[in-house]
Amino acid sequence: MELKEALTKLAALQAKMSAYYHAMSLIHYDGATTAPKGTAQNRAQTLGILSEETYKLSTGEETVALLEYLDTHKDELDEKSARMVFLMLKSIREMQKIPMDEYIAYQQLLVEADDVWHTAKETSDFALFCPLLEKIFEFQKKMAAYCAPEMHPYNYCLNTYEDGLTMEKCDEFFAALRSRLVPLIKKIGEREQLSNACVKGDFDEREQEQFALELMKTMGIDLDHCGLGTTEHPFTTSLGSHHDVRITTNYSRDDLSSSMFSVIHEGGHALYDMGSADDLAYTVLDGGVSMGIHESQSRFYENLLGRSRAFVEHIFPKMCECFPEQMKGYTAEDVYRAINLVTPSLIRTEADEVTYCLHVMVRYELEKRVISGELAVKDLPSEWNRLYYEYLGVEVPNDREGVLQDSHWSGGGIGYFPSYALGSAYGAQLLRKMKETIDVDACLREGNFAPINEWNREHIWKFGALYKPADLLEMALGEKFDPFVYTDYLEKKYGELYEL
Amino acid sequence: MELKEALTKLAALQAKMSAYYHAMSLIHYDGATTAPKGTAQNRAQTLGILSEETYKLSTGEETVALLEYLDTHKDELDEKSARMVFLMLKSIREMQKIPMDEYIAYQQLLVEADDVWHTAKETSDFALFCPLLEKIFEFQKKMAAYCAPEMHPYNYCLNTYEDGLTMEKCDEFFAALRSRLVPLIKKIGEREQLSNACVKGDFDEREQEQFALELMKTMGIDLDHCGLGTTEHPFTTSLGSHHDVRITTNYSRDDLSSSMFSVIHEGGHALYDMGSADDLAYTVLDGGVSMGIHESQSRFYENLLGRSRAFVEHIFPKMCECFPEQMKGYTAEDVYRAINLVTPSLIRTEADEVTYCLHVMVRYELEKRVISGELAVKDLPSEWNRLYYEYLGVEVPNDREGVLQDSHWSGGGIGYFPSYALGSAYGAQLLRKMKETIDVDACLREGNFAPINEWNREHIWKFGALYKPADLLEMALGEKFDPFVYTDYLEKKYGELYEL
Repeated sequence: MELKEALTKLAALQAKMSAYYHAMSLIHYDGATTAPKGTAQNRAQTLGILSEETYKLSTGEETVALLEYLDTHKDELDEKSARMVFLMLKSIREMQKIPMDEYIAYQQLLVEADDVWHTAKETSDFALFCPLLEKIFEFQKKMAAYCAPEMHPYNYCLNTYEDGLTMEKCDEFFAALRSRLVPLIKKIGEREQLSNACVKGDFDEREQEQFALELMKTMGIDLDHCGLGTTEHPFTTSLGSHHDVRITTNYSRDDLSSSMFSVIHEGGHALYDMGSADDLAYTVLDGGVSMGIHESQSRFYENLLGRSRAFVEHIFPKMCECFPEQMKGYTAEDVYRAINLVTPSLIRTEADEVTYCLHVMVRYELEKRVISGELAVKDLPSEWNRLYYEYLGVEVPNDREGVLQDSHWSGGGIGYFPSYALGSAYGAQLLRKMKETIDVDACLREGNFAPINEWNREHIWKFGALYKPADLLEMALGEKFDPFVYTDYLEKKYGELYEL
Repeated sequence: MELKEALTKLAALQAKMSAYYHAMSLIHYDGATTAPKGTAQNRAQTLGILSEETYKLSTGEETVALLEYLDTHKDELDEKSARMVFLMLKSIREMQKIPMDEYIAYQQLLVEADDVWHTAKETSDFALFCPLLEKIFEFQKKMAAYCAPEMHPYNYCLNTYEDGLTMEKCDEFFAALRSRLVPLIKKIGEREQLSNACVKGDFDEREQEQFALELMKTMGIDLDHCGLGTTEHPFTTSLGSHHDVRITTNYSRDDLSSSMFSVIHEGGHALYDMGSADDLAYTVLDGGVSMGIHESQSRFYENLLGRSRAFVEHIFPKMCECFPEQMKGYTAEDVYRAINLVTPSLIRTEADEVTYCLHVMVRYELEKRVISGELAVKDLPSEWNRLYYEYLGVEVPNDREGVLQDSHWSGGGIGYFPSYALGSAYGAQLLRKMKETIDVDACLREGNFAPINEWNREHIWKFGALYKPADLLEMALGEKFDPFVYTDYLEKKYGELYEL
């Protein structure tokens, strides 16, 4: 085989895999948005067949031979091709270590677990979900043992979502956050509470959707390549390449801020995906590199920009236009205060910036202990409740609002949660760096996202998955990651707001 | 190979093809409904790859060997398996006769033609579309020469949509219709015109959608397995199997009848698709057998039932509920008359029951003459206009409302149109047969579609593509097809309405 021919084959292989992913992602998207409710079994039938085809394609003999050939010539490859070969081989070698029958059994377990979790959450019945969750944790441990026997199994889990992440790094990171956040939350708790009355009321869904589209436009999202759908849980998905991205949100009739910030959050994910260099389309490098970096972008737009006073000053007139009745008598400053109300609460996705990371820490601690064999799955609810009281001072009234609230575990997403906290902290440091060359507040006040997006595109987005997340971050920052930049940001912002 | 093993493989092969079709149909559906407008190229990339995979799968060596083996054992097969093997082999043998490069060139031509047709229609510029349409007609002739050299090429085209149909049968059929419809239209033209004021007005799209869902429920369509979308041109599509069907409509703000009858029409298609026996799911027999039979169902619900006095009497209170202002002062009889107004017009899809078939005849005549080499594509507009004047007495002001109005030709659908007229006539005879055992008007007056749907299911739907269309029809009717049943129906209904 000639190298040139092999590279052509590599491109064709990735294009074919992108086509399968396009189909499967769209089938999922359809299921979450417009599909009639009795059609899940029909989708499962098709998804089963397409994922088997994708598996065969990505791990078949011909593919392995091609990648191994290219790997032996890696010094002759350009940077992008070398990284593609590395990532694809890595994933194949991992897959090869897992016995096929166990892998299939696990996929079936996840389908069942998702279903049971929904019911368990609805009825607040952890016992129903417990046996499935036990199996999921067991499988994760087995996967880790197969794929990375040299690693602590929880490090293997963390690496799935953030390449290079370890418990040691997480412990250090969370300790840093805790040292600053716990006193900050305590001080805030002693001050008079802010009012969020201006974002509460009766907001028509259709009008919220119009406002959401305005937000997307303001953020500089190209609506010709990014759609907005409605789902129970907001998410972002790419279809085939970064040329077609969909975000979704959920409209809460009595709370405007809920859809507003989920749209800005998912919009951040979309901008990152859509910002991949065009020559990465239909390759494994297209889209984001890790969940940590992805959350650094989504939470950057949601919180660092979206919940800033400058942005609120820009968007307030538009809010008044869309919701003239509801906004009557309120000012931009009222909105700014409403969307930055800090209060320890039960639900992670509704948490404010300051308490958010404590929600993540609870999950991190519990996952680590279960995977390490120090905690039984059946004891998760009591430990969850104990930690919520210890970290956040709140009493968990039931498992629905407690240990059953997130979909991650039922989907096998053990090790995912730390990405949210890491991403938040990455974002704060990226913002500080950006501010060295851009007057971000002035841009926000004008609703001019172009310079901000351009900076992110040049430093993060365009690279897709070309670099390891930690390397990408250091290249963008020009310095090491420092979690205290994030805590400094929080202390400054909330110190001013709560007059600490 | 053992016969039992071969049958298992046959089932797996069809399941895999259904999965690919699910994916491709959904990508098309997404493109027509919710996809952002700049994403067509991204879909084309994926569709290109998936259709190549489907082509390879359905015509590959392994598939051919399997089908040929089963074909040699056809006497040992059950009726369904034998029909599957027959249909799949037939399609492969046809594909094999077409040189691959020409086939691919044709697919690319159709993509381009669709695009150019849209622009040509918008700007009413036939000259722009003409060179592409010439190529499409040329390809159809070549296809016919490759696949069925013993047949007249237009008969080959007709057979694509209605197995067994010939020009001779069409000529006879259309002559029969013409002999009765032309005098009927003339007589109606001499009477006082009915008023359609009650369906004209200002109808909110969202309220029309609610009403559309009510119509679907009334028709007995299972909304757990059939969705309703909005597109420029209404259509029906199945995703993977008859367990997930989607219909679409378009809402005309100033005319309630437009979406109302397109929903009932597409609902008829959906009922037919969804009525396949469950063991046909994920096989080539799932869904309808031909376009003629399909239209017999869609136009059955739309016209024979939907535009009947009995149905209007049932649905009128619901119309008043949904549109209290617009319906004020009108009666069910006003609605019945409004939706049955007969008037020669320009646009086929908006034509009434009586003049509809004349629109089809114009297209049939022109296709036949172009394929036979008696008419040049460039002369289509003038001939179109001449025939519209001759058959319908209307002057065509421009090509947008004339020869460019339909999407069929740009999609390669030469030979499709007669199905609409045939379907209408099939439907009338089916209704007469059904009335031997069911009091259809009483059912409609009660909004009780169950006995009607049950009859159609037992006589048409459940068989999917198991029988040839002509055989299926004769089995259902218990007699030969007779087009005069349709003309009798029209003469009776409109004779009464227009007091002829």
